[in-house]
Amino acid sequence: MSEPTRVLLDESRIPRNWYNIIPDLPSPPPPPLHPATLQPVGPDDLAPLFPMELIGQEVSEERFVPIPESVLDVYRLWRPTPLIRARRLEKSLGTPARIYYKYEGGSPSGSHKPNTAVPQAYYNAAQGVRRLTTETGAGQWGSALAFACAQYGLACEVWMVRASYDQKPYRRSLMKVYGATVHASPSAVTRSGSRILADDPACTGSLGIAISEAVEVAGQHGDTRYALGSVLNHVLMHQTVIGEEALEQLAAFGETPDLIIGCTGGGSNFAGLVFPFLREKLAGRMEPVLRAVEPTACPSFTRGTYAYDFGDTAGFTPLLKMHTLGHEFVPDPIHAGGLRYHGMSPLLSHIYELGMIEAVARNQTECFEAGLRFARTEGVLPAPEPTHALAETIAEALRCADTGEEKVILTAVCGHGHFDLPAYERHLSGQLDDFALPQQRIDEALARLPAV
Amino acid sequence: MSEPTRVLLDESRIPRNWYNIIPDLPSPPPPPLHPATLQPVGPDDLAPLFPMELIGQEVSEERFVPIPESVLDVYRLWRPTPLIRARRLEKSLGTPARIYYKYEGGSPSGSHKPNTAVPQAYYNAAQGVRRLTTETGAGQWGSALAFACAQYGLACEVWMVRASYDQKPYRRSLMKVYGATVHASPSAVTRSGSRILADDPACTGSLGIAISEAVEVAGQHGDTRYALGSVLNHVLMHQTVIGEEALEQLAAFGETPDLIIGCTGGGSNFAGLVFPFLREKLAGRMEPVLRAVEPTACPSFTRGTYAYDFGDTAGFTPLLKMHTLGHEFVPDPIHAGGLRYHGMSPLLSHIYELGMIEAVARNQTECFEAGLRFARTEGVLPAPEPTHALAETIAEALRCADTGEEKVILTAVCGHGHFDLPAYERHLSGQLDDFALPQQRIDEALARLPAV
Repeated sequence: MSEPTRVLLDESRIPRNWYNIIPDLPSPPPPPLHPATLQPVGPDDLAPLFPMELIGQEVSEERFVPIPESVLDVYRLWRPTPLIRARRLEKSLGTPARIYYKYEGGSPSGSHKPNTAVPQAYYNAAQGVRRLTTETGAGQWGSALAFACAQYGLACEVWMVRASYDQKPYRRSLMKVYGATVHASPSAVTRSGSRILADDPACTGSLGIAISEAVEVAGQHGDTRYALGSVLNHVLMHQTVIGEEALEQLAAFGETPDLIIGCTGGGSNFAGLVFPFLREKLAGRMEPVLRAVEPTACPSFTRGTYAYDFGDTAGFTPLLKMHTLGHEFVPDPIHAGGLRYHGMSPLLSHIYELGMIEAVARNQTECFEAGLRFARTEGVLPAPEPTHALAETIAEALRCADTGEEKVILTAVCGHGHFDLPAYERHLSGQLDDFALPQQRIDEALARLPAV
Repeated sequence: MSEPTRVLLDESRIPRNWYNIIPDLPSPPPPPLHPATLQPVGPDDLAPLFPMELIGQEVSEERFVPIPESVLDVYRLWRPTPLIRARRLEKSLGTPARIYYKYEGGSPSGSHKPNTAVPQAYYNAAQGVRRLTTETGAGQWGSALAFACAQYGLACEVWMVRASYDQKPYRRSLMKVYGATVHASPSAVTRSGSRILADDPACTGSLGIAISEAVEVAGQHGDTRYALGSVLNHVLMHQTVIGEEALEQLAAFGETPDLIIGCTGGGSNFAGLVFPFLREKLAGRMEPVLRAVEPTACPSFTRGTYAYDFGDTAGFTPLLKMHTLGHEFVPDPIHAGGLRYHGMSPLLSHIYELGMIEAVARNQTECFEAGLRFARTEGVLPAPEPTHALAETIAEALRCADTGEEKVILTAVCGHGHFDLPAYERHLSGQLDDFALPQQRIDEALARLPAV
């Protein structure tokens, strides 16, 4: 037991601040625009949807934002999370690379999402809000917010995409266990849902529709606000607790990273992992390559364009300057539900344009294969989303096996796959598809970008 | 952050020995008997089923058995596990009691079962065994053994009770993810299964039938052995890593336990938690009350008898002196599948007869209610089995709220409930039953105990 396998930190080492990367960038990201006026949106535009503290964090110029004691107190239920050296995976690959993974699957809802759900619930409760609404696809975000609302006595109302509502009953039940109300979306309880159901009673829904329903209800009630699980600056900032801990833990291993790999959907897992390391890189203290991995079925970084677009399908949100496949782009039904988003965090898109991060895309079946290899060596079954980062990590480690390079690779397993076993079962029986994405589908969606 | 919520231990603090309580008892437990001769079974009788190291551990008189380096190396993937003070649960109960729980749900398969699955796979592999067979009900044990076999390159073949095979596809898939072969039991691949299917092609199976199938296959092949997930002495001993760590962690909190509460099915979780504390109690260093909690639907301690009985329904195993409801007793279908066993570990039964532990029984619905309360306060959703310990813990904490007693209570959440959400869903919709158990059913089963 000479060299450690797992580095844990005492709860006194939970970060006391979130890290806001914007002041450290050479230029700030372009602002969101009001779709009618094409002027930057202000706090008043957002106040019906978000509490003032979060609106302030969205545009904060402070490098470090203190984490409230009450939030730290909830974080202590599962944070700090472990950083683990994947010795068994390394051995199975015969690689001289040293692979480390930050494991976020030990949280109450089984993913990294509570890192932001808890402060979002806290700031809403502190402002006197009584209820939060949100949308969820596969359910990772919905179950995290339901847990957080239970901690602060808030009601929680979730619109879950009908297809997932029917196919993923476990996540739906978990939200109800935490006391949330779960609607299949489209639902008859909103005007936008009712309108869609009138046209198509069998509609299986989409994230765009579910956002519309959650936003509609939040906007109608003074005691209700809306919560988003990724994309926005404050959400990414809350997730930096992952990277801050990993920075300290990797140092405890005596390592400096050469390459950091994370999966990206809306961007919160990737940003949470890499922003603290990017800070160190900008300060000249280390030089890691930072690489985002997205699914080939939804390649906003690698095949999208950088333009102003709507955050939702229906076009209700402000216009966001981001890497996008077009707000009308509907990704094929890959099982990594958390990566099926047409756009990308505006902040990460800006950083990508600045040349500070790389991006690659991976196919669904090679990702599930990586997940299987990881489970059989490291024990933990990863959710489909982080298998994208693992597929890239394994490919890189195999390159090192060829070259002999002792590369230090850091990645994150942002959630466990115990809710995703039907997808693994389908992979094992050879039923998964890689969904070749014709350029024409992207071109068609991009042709319908809003004129800015 | 003055008083800690969670005490973690560095991996150097993983126990280096398992604790064997037998030498510390005033008398050893009565031996297993061969059903034909009624003589104590010897190593030769067991050699077709178990490797010699485990047979030796079953009858060991050493107080401490060193944990092999290779096993420690796998334990390091998730051990030491955290000990957490349930501050939020305490607050919701308004109790002056201080409640601590050892959390075993962070293991690769989500329960405490890998603590023994890993050494069992290791000793078999070290002896040149190529394949392990086992039975599983809900699947906690089967998935733990599948994980352990993947670590040591062993084939793993699991007979899963047909009813669970059909109703709990997630656990079945998890076993396959780890590379195991899973048969619905009764199966056509064994003689005992085929015989039953010939009589009743729609038979939904039982643990007793599944044991028969796994034992039959192990007995037929020189390179194959059988593995059991609870009941036996060596299994309980492997689980003492739970209690050894908790002993150190509770001391780090500055606490001495007044009451330790654990759920019991076959007894491995309870024994693993309490044996190290019982050692300390026997040495006069502390005086905790040790209380087992079983389901009212399967009350082997509180309504069973202490007698020699078969470990399986069909009567293939040696005769074990234990608390039993009779090997033909079929428990009602409560969702705590891990507690649906007609008997009780012979070692725990002996210790109960010595007056060293208490036992109580709890109804299914109050247990699920306790699970809900725990999830909404502490975040972690417990599996149905440990909700029995939590229901008793909550009742005790409420008594303390009345009396003002600052009792220190230790319990264990031996697994997470992410695989058990359909059961919680049924509870939430009021569909769960408490299954009153008429004395006549027990009397009838006890009337068919083997004559010894």
